[in-house]
Amino acid sequence: MMGGMKEHCGVFGVYDHPDAAQLTYLGLYALQHRGQESAGIAISDNSRVTCHLGMGLVTEVFPEQRLTALGGRIAAGHVRYSTTGASDVRNAQPFCVGYQQGSIAIAHNGNLVNSRELKQELEAGGSIFQSTMDSEIIVHLIARSKARTLEERVAEALSRVRGAYSLVILTGSQLIAARDPNGFRPLCIGHVDEATVLASETCALDLIRARYLREVEPGEIVTIDDDGMRSLKPFEAAPQSFCIFELIYFARPDSLMFCTSVHTTRKRQGKRLADEHPTNADLVMPIPDSGNAAALGFAESSGLPFDMGIVRNHYVGRTFIQPSARIRDLGVRVKLNPVPDVVGGKRVGVIEDSIVRGTTSRARMRALRDSGAREVHMRVSCPPLTNPCFYGIDFHTTRELVASSRSVPEIAEYIGVDSLGYLSLEGLLASMPAPAENFCLACFTGQYPVEVPKGLTKSALER
Amino acid sequence: MMGGMKEHCGVFGVYDHPDAAQLTYLGLYALQHRGQESAGIAISDNSRVTCHLGMGLVTEVFPEQRLTALGGRIAAGHVRYSTTGASDVRNAQPFCVGYQQGSIAIAHNGNLVNSRELKQELEAGGSIFQSTMDSEIIVHLIARSKARTLEERVAEALSRVRGAYSLVILTGSQLIAARDPNGFRPLCIGHVDEATVLASETCALDLIRARYLREVEPGEIVTIDDDGMRSLKPFEAAPQSFCIFELIYFARPDSLMFCTSVHTTRKRQGKRLADEHPTNADLVMPIPDSGNAAALGFAESSGLPFDMGIVRNHYVGRTFIQPSARIRDLGVRVKLNPVPDVVGGKRVGVIEDSIVRGTTSRARMRALRDSGAREVHMRVSCPPLTNPCFYGIDFHTTRELVASSRSVPEIAEYIGVDSLGYLSLEGLLASMPAPAENFCLACFTGQYPVEVPKGLTKSALER
Amino acid sequence: MMGGMKEHCGVFGVYDHPDAAQLTYLGLYALQHRGQESAGIAISDNSRVTCHLGMGLVTEVFPEQRLTALGGRIAAGHVRYSTTGASDVRNAQPFCVGYQQGSIAIAHNGNLVNSRELKQELEAGGSIFQSTMDSEIIVHLIARSKARTLEERVAEALSRVRGAYSLVILTGSQLIAARDPNGFRPLCIGHVDEATVLASETCALDLIRARYLREVEPGEIVTIDDDGMRSLKPFEAAPQSFCIFELIYFARPDSLMFCTSVHTTRKRQGKRLADEHPTNADLVMPIPDSGNAAALGFAESSGLPFDMGIVRNHYVGRTFIQPSARIRDLGVRVKLNPVPDVVGGKRVGVIEDSIVRGTTSRARMRALRDSGAREVHMRVSCPPLTNPCFYGIDFHTTRELVASSRSVPEIAEYIGVDSLGYLSLEGLLASMPAPAENFCLACFTGQYPVEVPKGLTKSALER
Amino acid sequence: MMGGMKEHCGVFGVYDHPDAAQLTYLGLYALQHRGQESAGIAISDNSRVTCHLGMGLVTEVFPEQRLTALGGRIAAGHVRYSTTGASDVRNAQPFCVGYQQGSIAIAHNGNLVNSRELKQELEAGGSIFQSTMDSEIIVHLIARSKARTLEERVAEALSRVRGAYSLVILTGSQLIAARDPNGFRPLCIGHVDEATVLASETCALDLIRARYLREVEPGEIVTIDDDGMRSLKPFEAAPQSFCIFELIYFARPDSLMFCTSVHTTRKRQGKRLADEHPTNADLVMPIPDSGNAAALGFAESSGLPFDMGIVRNHYVGRTFIQPSARIRDLGVRVKLNPVPDVVGGKRVGVIEDSIVRGTTSRARMRALRDSGAREVHMRVSCPPLTNPCFYGIDFHTTRELVASSRSVPEIAEYIGVDSLGYLSLEGLLASMPAPAENFCLACFTGQYPVEVPKGLTKSALER
Repeated sequence: MMGGMKEHCGVFGVYDHPDAAQLTYLGLYALQHRGQESAGIAISDNSRVTCHLGMGLVTEVFPEQRLTALGGRIAAGHVRYSTTGASDVRNAQPFCVGYQQGSIAIAHNGNLVNSRELKQELEAGGSIFQSTMDSEIIVHLIARSKARTLEERVAEALSRVRGAYSLVILTGSQLIAARDPNGFRPLCIGHVDEATVLASETCALDLIRARYLREVEPGEIVTIDDDGMRSLKPFEAAPQSFCIFELIYFARPDSLMFCTSVHTTRKRQGKRLADEHPTNADLVMPIPDSGNAAALGFAESSGLPFDMGIVRNHYVGRTFIQPSARIRDLGVRVKLNPVPDVVGGKRVGVIEDSIVRGTTSRARMRALRDSGAREVHMRVSCPPLTNPCFYGIDFHTTRELVASSRSVPEIAEYIGVDSLGYLSLEGLLASMPAPAENFCLACFTGQYPVEVPKGLTKSALER
Repeated sequence: MMGGMKEHCGVFGVYDHPDAAQLTYLGLYALQHRGQESAGIAISDNSRVTCHLGMGLVTEVFPEQRLTALGGRIAAGHVRYSTTGASDVRNAQPFCVGYQQGSIAIAHNGNLVNSRELKQELEAGGSIFQSTMDSEIIVHLIARSKARTLEERVAEALSRVRGAYSLVILTGSQLIAARDPNGFRPLCIGHVDEATVLASETCALDLIRARYLREVEPGEIVTIDDDGMRSLKPFEAAPQSFCIFELIYFARPDSLMFCTSVHTTRKRQGKRLADEHPTNADLVMPIPDSGNAAALGFAESSGLPFDMGIVRNHYVGRTFIQPSARIRDLGVRVKLNPVPDVVGGKRVGVIEDSIVRGTTSRARMRALRDSGAREVHMRVSCPPLTNPCFYGIDFHTTRELVASSRSVPEIAEYIGVDSLGYLSLEGLLASMPAPAENFCLACFTGQYPVEVPKGLTKSALER
Repeated sequence: MMGGMKEHCGVFGVYDHPDAAQLTYLGLYALQHRGQESAGIAISDNSRVTCHLGMGLVTEVFPEQRLTALGGRIAAGHVRYSTTGASDVRNAQPFCVGYQQGSIAIAHNGNLVNSRELKQELEAGGSIFQSTMDSEIIVHLIARSKARTLEERVAEALSRVRGAYSLVILTGSQLIAARDPNGFRPLCIGHVDEATVLASETCALDLIRARYLREVEPGEIVTIDDDGMRSLKPFEAAPQSFCIFELIYFARPDSLMFCTSVHTTRKRQGKRLADEHPTNADLVMPIPDSGNAAALGFAESSGLPFDMGIVRNHYVGRTFIQPSARIRDLGVRVKLNPVPDVVGGKRVGVIEDSIVRGTTSRARMRALRDSGAREVHMRVSCPPLTNPCFYGIDFHTTRELVASSRSVPEIAEYIGVDSLGYLSLEGLLASMPAPAENFCLACFTGQYPVEVPKGLTKSALER
Repeated sequence: MMGGMKEHCGVFGVYDHPDAAQLTYLGLYALQHRGQESAGIAISDNSRVTCHLGMGLVTEVFPEQRLTALGGRIAAGHVRYSTTGASDVRNAQPFCVGYQQGSIAIAHNGNLVNSRELKQELEAGGSIFQSTMDSEIIVHLIARSKARTLEERVAEALSRVRGAYSLVILTGSQLIAARDPNGFRPLCIGHVDEATVLASETCALDLIRARYLREVEPGEIVTIDDDGMRSLKPFEAAPQSFCIFELIYFARPDSLMFCTSVHTTRKRQGKRLADEHPTNADLVMPIPDSGNAAALGFAESSGLPFDMGIVRNHYVGRTFIQPSARIRDLGVRVKLNPVPDVVGGKRVGVIEDSIVRGTTSRARMRALRDSGAREVHMRVSCPPLTNPCFYGIDFHTTRELVASSRSVPEIAEYIGVDSLGYLSLEGLLASMPAPAENFCLACFTGQYPVEVPKGLTKSALER
């Protein structure tokens, strides 16, 4: 609709390893939390790139036979976020095409803000589009560039786009990593054996026992080929605005961001939250697993006992059917179920990583009370979410955000808790492993580091 | 092979509810941890029973269209344990057949010890067998009974079998629950709306908001039909020998067993473990998620800080491919990955629920050290497993149990930890929510409450 | 319902060939016209029999990977007729079970008339049934036999059943062929390399280049094992009553029956039909492909020009969807379409092999007229079908047979032809490659060679 | 590779019918013989076009649920030829994209000769390509056109391409048919109810009971929208060069071409063939079903008896597995099997529609002799094929054509027949329902009506 679907995604790349496809499979496996809708691997046999895509989890898209058939020493991979609605293999990535210089595949994490304008401009120039993906726009721009080398063509193309992108680009003989000047989305470099590896998060390096080298820097284009690895920084320097929501919720806790595990950062948030919003609960417990680390920090700082009073069903799949209307509201316990004798008769402090719509929290709090909780005190380890994201996180509209139109007491009443406390923006920033100026805080402040076209903001308000 | 495959399973039943199939689907969903190989639902339309079976998770076997097509007010369901090897839909349950009295379906959790003898006897009488399931034997015995009523036929059949069984039996108009005289496996009764529900664990009652009524008692046959619910206790009273491993590992933490959540029992084990085997580690952390509760108890009792230094990948599927030999040993991080700055440079106390073969623990400990742990002190919240189980838990042979042939220091060396402590049997029993005499402890003591034929024990030793 | 579903089927077997499974696959391929609902292959590894079954065509059930995984030197195969209604892989064959003497698989073509009685008797003796197949009854009888050898057990079992059966039975080390005393259904023996082959029709021998040896004789049990091939004739001699409908319609034209190709026999029927019911049409044409041979004979004898004025769509699958109601009556041209300038303005003689319900003929005749045929003269190469079949052909009830309640002129009016002529019974028999007394003519005469229980005939009348 | 894969295909379109998708489904069903690799339907909801594609037969790609979900009153459909090698859903059609003017779908039958040049030119202008289809080139050209109306843009695009195309183009509100100036491939117009229909062959009109209106003329662009149907002829008039191979082999016999059924034309070829190459065989028989009509004509003219001595297996699927090497050469009888007592001891005249490689004919002739044929006299109802086709028929290279390098006696020896006669070019043309100058005869004469670039011809020679 407005510039394509939001794209929570994970990307991965390998240069020059005999098991390039298998390593990519494993890397995507570790990044599966970044997208469960589709998966794809592009492979180069040193002259031509072929893409292998499918809907579903990495393990579903690549059964053994299909995986072992993938030869080649250079690979790029992608997992895509599961959104409701128009799921289509045509929107799976990497996006592969032929163009004047041969074949090229591109895997993209992030969201452009000027894709509508670019698309109109390209269409006016005769371009045709088969998907709604930003990556198709970028490939068109690369194909239209007259520059001599691939990295120059990529640079020229990227000079036209605005917004968030962490890219892995594959050609017959080169692997390229690129990150937007603001560095919204993560992308790191590692080594395994003699090979170079790219990944959205370090947990993917861990799984294949790759050594972490460094981040791809904001605005940097890294080219890896037989001449080694070289760097291009064609864009004007911008202050980094790393998506703070990666740290709050999206990234895996065992990934390192700013040299600190996400787990540790979240624990710090929990400690600060305890200082800002103490509670006289009998115990503190997380909404698992995203609230685990903050709850640990909260307990540590507050001295309250930590317990795991809600259990997560590990077999919750993507295809759970909500059965007949008569039993519709049973759904909430499908994923999480309170432990009755932990919460029964207790004043429980519950730690959530964030509240988006509030509907899920509301149902969970009701389940807690049904299981006997006497009082429920919710603490949230980030500030109220009041603004939509245009750079790749799935808050599409203002209206869907419960905090955009309600005060904290109103939210407390809506979700049905006895008290509610949000971590302050100062508290959040104080918990971060990097200075405040390095982060994009737009969802909390409405200050967008890369200007968002009026059309997009208007539409986000209206829907 | 020897009396059929071991059967970790979950069973469920509903009597007289317009959404019987949907409730069974949800109940099996909550019991999915008890078996991921196959799932099945048997439905009665008040005269005839039909069975719907398939390989895979409940959500895979019952896509929306298939589920909504299931009418009927009485249902029985089953999930089956995933073992490596001969997976076959012929071994899926409920097992459905026609016989002289009409059609019947049976869902079985547990393992008989005299199935070989019974099968030989039945075959000598002309019986044919299409599966390797104990349930087929029980149905043959029911079909051969000359007794007048179904419950009498069931009683007569069960008087012949020895071992562990928690059964849900469905006919055109009746639902029957039965439990062996020793009550090895769990089975409880609940109510939702006007309907009666049977389930292996209370977490399945929670999901459908059913009220817990009581356990099916050891040796009890409960018949539910239009005349209400009635009980038969045809067998000589035996001391209960509930499988203690249900509490240690197998059951979901939010299920109530002996009126106490499994979580709370495991926490008590952890406390006692801390008392028995203190450690001067810098922090205590679980192998998630099965070690969570015991680690919480350990931390609470020892005063050591609790943290979650190992992260679990939620997308680990049943079909992970071990790629090429070159990268084979990457597997261990697929499921669990340490958080480097939590464990780095630390003396970590790690809480495992149990050690079976030791190979997985060994690989995990190596990963912990690779992530920088300085010292690793493992504590195990049950005693060393030294004897195979013949009643339904998947320790097939003596040889595979690392503790059957090694002392604790030898195990410590094998799995590569700086210290290792097992909870004592006394400590385990002291943590339990019921007296010691109520449990089967055979895997720790070798004392089998129901005599095991020589052939079986011999074979368990030899393999 | 009444004695199981009717079973049009094809059976195949191989003894002692390194490619036993592949040959069986090919054999079933050639016999695919005898059943498209399900396919199965049972394989023996010289001690144990395993079965591989599935719904669909042989090529669908056995993709390359599954086929090549089948080792073993002895095999049996089965294809099953596609009926509407309760299709279930539980009714796929070969039917495989374990019993006192090991494992056994059975593939059955034909239909028993006393299955209801046998089932009741077996159930009274405690037997349980998982399918509605006659083969399950036969296996129960084999399993209950106390006889010493397999062939004696088979003989004892078959002495109890009445009706039609051509069986291929597989155990760990033996392959057995058996045919009912009346020899209703075909079954022949061939040799390829050193191996022995069994098949419903000779066209399956042709495909694998096997040499035809002989028929399994009515009432004969042929055992093939390491001691060679031996024959048992345990039953009282009965006059053969081979299903004449195999020759009229069911068998492939290139198969030899009574040493004559079915094509040649059908051509003779057509010649005789021309003599009995001449027509002054402008040309003679078949309803392809089942009317081809008779039309050739009719043209030859009558001197009328032969043409193929109706074209068959080769891609008619089993799953054609009848789209929305608005366009429902388009269905008839999906399979067959007239050639306008062949039939336009002409008096066409149309040759049908037989008329069952008459509805299909009616629609086809309307299409012929729509395409411009001036007059339509239908000739049918067998007599009016007036009685149901209880031996395995799919005329379930009397009522469905258009000729059971209508005179020839009434049928002509019903299907909308200008004239209609049926081959007389004498004419049919005169065309056959064997004497009249060798055939079952029950569908034309109501004289059933094997007595049919009252229950069955009553039910056939009433439905 | 060289200008994309050859494209045997079928196209279909409907304008303004409430069952547009269902009619398209039926139309494609009737055209299934023109392509079995993939199928697709594009639907317009009056503003936007969506495409639904898949690999396999129409019935496989569109199961009931998927078909009934397709709403919309305008539709275009496509079936694609099954070639071995790189089958990919990315090459399925209709090809759908968005461009400046909205969304557009295109279904193409035929093959361009200048696609390589156009692709290079387009790539030089920055275009990217996701497939190897000529249709993608045409869409690029349409998108780059600055013309005001769709038909003008289509005209401008088509003015650039050379070769064979019969196109159905769909936008949100228009349906366009276009045919190259030479009219290589068929495309006709019909009416059903109030709706307009387009189809490759009239047999598709028959199936949906549409009335035939006329052909789309060579070089004509027909636009159908709410203003009715209008015609544009933007290209210089060229003599028609209709593919004579459509009549010889490719089209369905019940389709009308030049107002004559293909069956009748083929029969005429057979008559002429009998005159040119009489034989003293005992009977004449076709290789079914493609040789049926010519054999009928041959028999009629020669006075020899006609018979069907070879039987076709109707269940030959696209996925037949050639089993192990040991039994590899069994394949030939999988599709066709001789009737032994028809051919045994006989001098048989066999009518083939054409000979391409000769390998299949060779195997079939061997099978005939194995079945006892004494002499085999082959007659072919077209001249020797000596030149590759660049306009859409699957003779890729010169070398593969057995007649390109062998004399008729040499071919006779190669395929193993006692005599061999080809219909002369004069005879062929005399049998046609239109004057000689209306046909493309390039495969026989090497005279290509549309100049073929040197690169293509060279490559066809060399491979």
